Amino acid sequence: MNTPIIPGKNTPAWIIGHLAAVNDNMATLLELGPKLKPEYEKAFIRPDGTVQPPALSEILKYWNDSNAYVNEKMEALSTADWFGKHTAVSAEDFAKEPHRNKLNVLISRTNHLSHHLGQLVWTAKK
Amino acid sequence: MNTPIIPGKNTPAWIIGHLAAVNDNMATLLELGPKLKPEYEKAFIRPDGTVQPPALSEILKYWNDSNAYVNEKMEALSTADWFGKHTAVSAEDFAKEPHRNKLNVLISRTNHLSHHLGQLVWTAKK
Repeated sequence: MNTPIIPGKNTPAWIIGHLAAVNDNMATLLELGPKLKPEYEKAFIRPDGTVQPPALSEILKYWNDSNAYVNEKMEALSTADWFGKHTAVSAEDFAKEPHRNKLNVLISRTNHLSHHLGQLVWTAKK
Repeated sequence: MNTPIIPGKNTPAWIIGHLAAVNDNMATLLELGPKLKPEYEKAFIRPDGTVQPPALSEILKYWNDSNAYVNEKMEALSTADWFGKHTAVSAEDFAKEPHRNKLNVLISRTNHLSHHLGQLVWTAKK
């Protein structure tokens, strides 16, 4: 898990941490609540060298926790909520581009997840 | 393009042919029209050894043609069409599971595309 699938590319452990941090970002984008681990943004979303990724066990815990967290919170959203704006778009822009809603964030993050799962399967099947 | 990204796995050329054949399958699933190349199903969807993948130039043409074809045909679908059943679900099952609509097929195929794009980026960036 700590060896890149392709030499020089990200390790499976890092990819899982990245997906967990993207889950965590949805907490803010979809107004679900505070992030579980805001400090990991600098390890897994915008790595600037100041925060090192934690151990694999912690990464796997973060992945499980972040999934449980956003899943639970998303269940409380109504249909109207899903068609409401996400937090990274202004009210003015949303009026002009009403497709920039919470559902759109979820679909785009699901595609992002698929993108990386396509890479992780090559680890699992080796 | 004819060398696997990971030894023993599919080549980039084959993955692109596979994505083109999945586009082509949507023609039938979404009632857009006949498939462009039904004969490639045995090369790229259910490979049984009886049909060999064509040359790379033909694969790239199939990819471009299949995208243009389904995009053009999908533009003619109405909102009601998108929420109507796809062709691989029976009327009885659709009555019980109305989420098995054409839009669901499009979202799932978009995720499938992301899955393989996550692999192809590792070719492009090598």
